Amino acid sequence: MATMNKVEPGKLFIGKVRHGGDLLEELTTLCLKENIRLGRVGALGAVQRARLGFYDQQTQEYQFFVVDQPLEITALLGNVSLKDGTPFVHAHVTLADKTGHAYGGHLAPGTVVFACEFILEAFDGPLLERNFDETTGLHLWAMPE
Amino acid sequence: MATMNKVEPGKLFIGKVRHGGDLLEELTTLCLKENIRLGRVGALGAVQRARLGFYDQQTQEYQFFVVDQPLEITALLGNVSLKDGTPFVHAHVTLADKTGHAYGGHLAPGTVVFACEFILEAFDGPLLERNFDETTGLHLWAMPE
Amino acid sequence: MATMNKVEPGKLFIGKVRHGGDLLEELTTLCLKENIRLGRVGALGAVQRARLGFYDQQTQEYQFFVVDQPLEITALLGNVSLKDGTPFVHAHVTLADKTGHAYGGHLAPGTVVFACEFILEAFDGPLLERNFDETTGLHLWAMPE
Repeated sequence: MATMNKVEPGKLFIGKVRHGGDLLEELTTLCLKENIRLGRVGALGAVQRARLGFYDQQTQEYQFFVVDQPLEITALLGNVSLKDGTPFVHAHVTLADKTGHAYGGHLAPGTVVFACEFILEAFDGPLLERNFDETTGLHLWAMPE
Repeated sequence: MATMNKVEPGKLFIGKVRHGGDLLEELTTLCLKENIRLGRVGALGAVQRARLGFYDQQTQEYQFFVVDQPLEITALLGNVSLKDGTPFVHAHVTLADKTGHAYGGHLAPGTVVFACEFILEAFDGPLLERNFDETTGLHLWAMPE
Repeated sequence: MATMNKVEPGKLFIGKVRHGGDLLEELTTLCLKENIRLGRVGALGAVQRARLGFYDQQTQEYQFFVVDQPLEITALLGNVSLKDGTPFVHAHVTLADKTGHAYGGHLAPGTVVFACEFILEAFDGPLLERNFDETTGLHLWAMPE
């Protein structure tokens, strides 16, 4: 069974990430600055290069790779929760090159913004802390099953 | 012209789907359990395998196919409405493999979760019921044009 | 540093775009009709053909291309702001063909709807106007850095 917490909408923001900024770092910095500890983020735009992760479900390690070319961000979807007590942004991105070919993965540091427009929402409610999960090797939300 | 109903935000949830669960079934079960009859869902995560649909606009039949490998869910977007009077989740997913290559389609039963984090929102307002649409062969919302 | 404005949730709508309509034009018309000058849109569905843009970061010009086949819309993410004082929809789409292969880009006029379900949200708060940005050659939101 899936598990979920009821939350309430909190502060809502619309904005842009600066040209040349690191996409994941910039979003994380905003959450720290505004003390957003639970929430959601969505974005679109373009990057100068992307660094993505794929989680190897067998070895239980992330494999990181770079797509070293300008790409459109066709979708960024992420959430905000706590890891080691600090706001942590977990985001996945879908990207497209000049031919329209699409790429995707786990957003990693090293993704450089060309232009990016985002919507960031805070939620009020039970905080979610990421803990090591033995089954997957990931840091997942500690919630009663 | 497009057609739309004004609605109000209802209950809001953040949670995770259990490892090994069927992604579409788990989301549907949550809607049934919480009696969410109108709403929105978004998610990211990873699957052990995906089963997707593509709607053939000529024959007006879904073609289903399996991508039988671990994949990141880079974006799941869906809505909740009624079909035969029961909560029905309609979701599309974008996925990526270990090389970053992206796949997508209509989320079908048979997509097995590795880890999945979602945000589920209920809307209050006029309920939307899916009825057979002669033009497309799909079950679309019955709304005045 | 990223820049953002705090806003409040406004009117919320769920609806569908008519079969055969131009996806971007229909969404824009809805914003004009409802006087939505700031907001967010998300959608899924299918198109008969897609016309997409890729922004060439070197020449600072959009390159447009057509994917002339039926495709699923796996994700449409967009925002609403002002350009020349008028509501302007900026949306990116991810699409998939019958093999599950994914495409993506900036949604351009010329994308013809087969069926499309959307959620459109207005935000109340400081309006955002698109102005020419010298660094990128794009029309970006005028916000203090």
